[in-house]
Amino acid sequence: MSKNLTKRETDYSKWYNELVVKANLAENSGVRGCMVIKPYGYAIWEKMQAELDRMFKETGHENAYFPLFVPKSMFEAEEKNAEGFAKECAVVTHYRLKNDPDNQGKLMVDPNAKLEEELIVRPTSEAIIWSTYKGWIQSYRDLPLLINQWANVVRWEMRTRLFLRTAEFLWQEGHTAHALETEAIKEAELILDVYGNFAENFMAMPVIKGLKTESERFAGAIETYCIEGLMQDGKALQAGTSHFLGQNFAKAFDVKFTSKEGKQEYVWATSWGVSTRLIGALIMTHSDDLGLVLPPNLAPIQVVIIPIHKTDEQLDAISVKINEIVAELRKKGISVKYDDRTAYKPGWKFAEYELKGVPLRIAMGPKDLENGTLEIARRDTLEKQNISQVTVVEYVEKTLKEIQDNLYQKALNYRETHITEVDSFEEFQEVLETKGGFISAHWDGTPETEEKIKDLTKATIRCIPLNNKIEGGKCVFTGEKSTQRVLFAKAY
Amino acid sequence: MSKNLTKRETDYSKWYNELVVKANLAENSGVRGCMVIKPYGYAIWEKMQAELDRMFKETGHENAYFPLFVPKSMFEAEEKNAEGFAKECAVVTHYRLKNDPDNQGKLMVDPNAKLEEELIVRPTSEAIIWSTYKGWIQSYRDLPLLINQWANVVRWEMRTRLFLRTAEFLWQEGHTAHALETEAIKEAELILDVYGNFAENFMAMPVIKGLKTESERFAGAIETYCIEGLMQDGKALQAGTSHFLGQNFAKAFDVKFTSKEGKQEYVWATSWGVSTRLIGALIMTHSDDLGLVLPPNLAPIQVVIIPIHKTDEQLDAISVKINEIVAELRKKGISVKYDDRTAYKPGWKFAEYELKGVPLRIAMGPKDLENGTLEIARRDTLEKQNISQVTVVEYVEKTLKEIQDNLYQKALNYRETHITEVDSFEEFQEVLETKGGFISAHWDGTPETEEKIKDLTKATIRCIPLNNKIEGGKCVFTGEKSTQRVLFAKAY
Repeated sequence: MSKNLTKRETDYSKWYNELVVKANLAENSGVRGCMVIKPYGYAIWEKMQAELDRMFKETGHENAYFPLFVPKSMFEAEEKNAEGFAKECAVVTHYRLKNDPDNQGKLMVDPNAKLEEELIVRPTSEAIIWSTYKGWIQSYRDLPLLINQWANVVRWEMRTRLFLRTAEFLWQEGHTAHALETEAIKEAELILDVYGNFAENFMAMPVIKGLKTESERFAGAIETYCIEGLMQDGKALQAGTSHFLGQNFAKAFDVKFTSKEGKQEYVWATSWGVSTRLIGALIMTHSDDLGLVLPPNLAPIQVVIIPIHKTDEQLDAISVKINEIVAELRKKGISVKYDDRTAYKPGWKFAEYELKGVPLRIAMGPKDLENGTLEIARRDTLEKQNISQVTVVEYVEKTLKEIQDNLYQKALNYRETHITEVDSFEEFQEVLETKGGFISAHWDGTPETEEKIKDLTKATIRCIPLNNKIEGGKCVFTGEKSTQRVLFAKAY
Repeated sequence: MSKNLTKRETDYSKWYNELVVKANLAENSGVRGCMVIKPYGYAIWEKMQAELDRMFKETGHENAYFPLFVPKSMFEAEEKNAEGFAKECAVVTHYRLKNDPDNQGKLMVDPNAKLEEELIVRPTSEAIIWSTYKGWIQSYRDLPLLINQWANVVRWEMRTRLFLRTAEFLWQEGHTAHALETEAIKEAELILDVYGNFAENFMAMPVIKGLKTESERFAGAIETYCIEGLMQDGKALQAGTSHFLGQNFAKAFDVKFTSKEGKQEYVWATSWGVSTRLIGALIMTHSDDLGLVLPPNLAPIQVVIIPIHKTDEQLDAISVKINEIVAELRKKGISVKYDDRTAYKPGWKFAEYELKGVPLRIAMGPKDLENGTLEIARRDTLEKQNISQVTVVEYVEKTLKEIQDNLYQKALNYRETHITEVDSFEEFQEVLETKGGFISAHWDGTPETEEKIKDLTKATIRCIPLNNKIEGGKCVFTGEKSTQRVLFAKAY
């Protein structure tokens, strides 16, 4: 099991790929660039979905569902958005197969079933949604329109990696419409906070909130807000984005409303999304050389219980006690698995659940049964402790909270020690190559400089932090005037 | 509002189409045959999903996610299945767009980005899933494999209707693998029971469980089990199917396992699904000329409360009391909406929530406030009653149960009086044209007779009921020998 896992320091990228497969999270499918999300990986996604969905609903959003396909003419209506995604679009051109006359038992695309207009498999849904909103919005009374969609999208990426970059992925995309510019901006910022809370309180992943530079902005957006996490190998990961779209889509699809004052005005828009990529971020934030480390708030199994026994009688006696404990823990809303399979040895099970990142592991043998004790092990620190069975519920509740906090603190410490202020380009390059992490540096504000730095170092501007202090300085590359530092990093 | 709804007896089909749109459930999109599921319709789907998902998990199933696309060579591996779906497949042939040199600002499919192998947008996922299962199943220890997927699928239907038949629809598809034939058959039957329970206890829709005839079977199945509902216009609707697939897919994808006895054997399979079509069934089972009628167990809003007031002071005073009631009802897990919008009059709101099928409507005015009363109206019977505010929680809980039961009983009574035994083809045709519903008749068991009856009457064999009694008789069409009656009907 875990001993075959490549060590992080040997090859972080290989470690990640192996871990995703060995922990049964996902695997590559027979379809280029598309993954199969296996039950254990999907269970994490379900936990993420449930929390996010609750947060969206608590902030007044409703779910809906829009078509998978976008007709080409609709897709190209907002030119910048279309241009941004055109190079990675899967295109449906035909609607029927027929028997291949030259190849018995095989099928071929029926040339007589060519579509009059090609359909794009949605890479994102602004176009189809705003073409629909045109029918929904007439008056200020119809606003705000606060809608979210859970869906699959397709972007034909050339280099793919499980969860991090796949041709098809699962996500949620919010699309809101507002009467006022200020309301739309407030919405984009509200969602950034929702994403930030989710990342920090559920994923135990500290994030920096910021704005993207023009060249990193979503195609068609006026401003892109983002949350950026830092992975253990010093590379940044964009974990969620929230876009203020201005009136771009309203103008492209002619969506106007009658204001309270009786005037016809274009609607203001936002869109925002997080995806199955978050599972990749979760893995790379906490896991170690033994396998996954999952924060209790998102772990599909929070506690696993393993009986240690030689005889069937011992197993029966232990099981009676364990079933009591299982029932008590479940009453508290804790997700417990009792693994009493006899086809696997305890040692194998220990390694298995370490690999799968279960936060707490309880073992109970015949002596524990006699003594009224049990052994409990933390996945994050690997510490083991013998405790009285009487205190187990209390101990588990307390320790799950501790693990959640500990994981966040550990990740935060790493992040805090990996933001380095530099004032020269030599230092910039050195820190990037030796220490990694975020580099806080002055930048002259031009896309040209950003591009040159990227070409030379592969580092991009991850964001202009929202809480930035304004300070005079000189661009780390050109020496031109700058008013604030921005965060550079190599990124996933 | 509702007064503009076409009456059912005038034109049932028009009534349905209008109702779906007016009640804000769904609408046609700008993409041929694809619908937009609006928030209110999607909320019903979410309720359905939550219950079904719970039932699947309670019976040992896990969720996973498989790719949207199926390479053509994989799709055609199980020939019968491929043949069954070939004529309605959306096909992706290209992966990039480019600027159209002859048409500034427009895009065209890039001819240099043609896929080597076409990708089929999944009409169902047996092929992609069984090609994956090959890697997951080696030994009897890997079985049973009990997996479900919530996904969108595409079938290029020529005549579409909101919810009932759309090119893209949402569904769940279960795909299980078993060591023994008997286990697979038991699984297919278990799921049929889950579907039956869901239809009867949540949708309040009585269903007949049965087997499909060969010509109505799922392409690639050995046996197709189904649940059939009866709509108010006397047409049947297939609400869910569960297929015993034998070893067809295991053979097509070479999925073998080592048995306990050390032998290599092909795996046995099932697949099963229900879709957003259920929303169509729900509407047509209960709704009336005023609009939707929703069973409380699936209603997104179970109770709506409307204040009746002239002055702001009155509204404030009423709101204090109503907010107390809202809190008490919510504590009991009841979903309540307090509609205190002042832009709409009470009368407008009454019609609105009637149209939307909210099971209970509470109204409270200044006099109620004085007297400690309120008015409560049932959507199913349209009865109104004045009750004491003190008893409201108890009353609501009891009445929601009564409504749920009443809707089921009403639908059951209709169904029971619309199963007609006939023994001649004249009678068959007469009952079909005048009374409608299920016709219970002897059939000689041949696809030819089934086909001829269909051509002449548009009625198909909906199923051979599982609880059928064996009785000798003569085929209603050919006079040949028959051992049991089957159920014919016109169907959605």
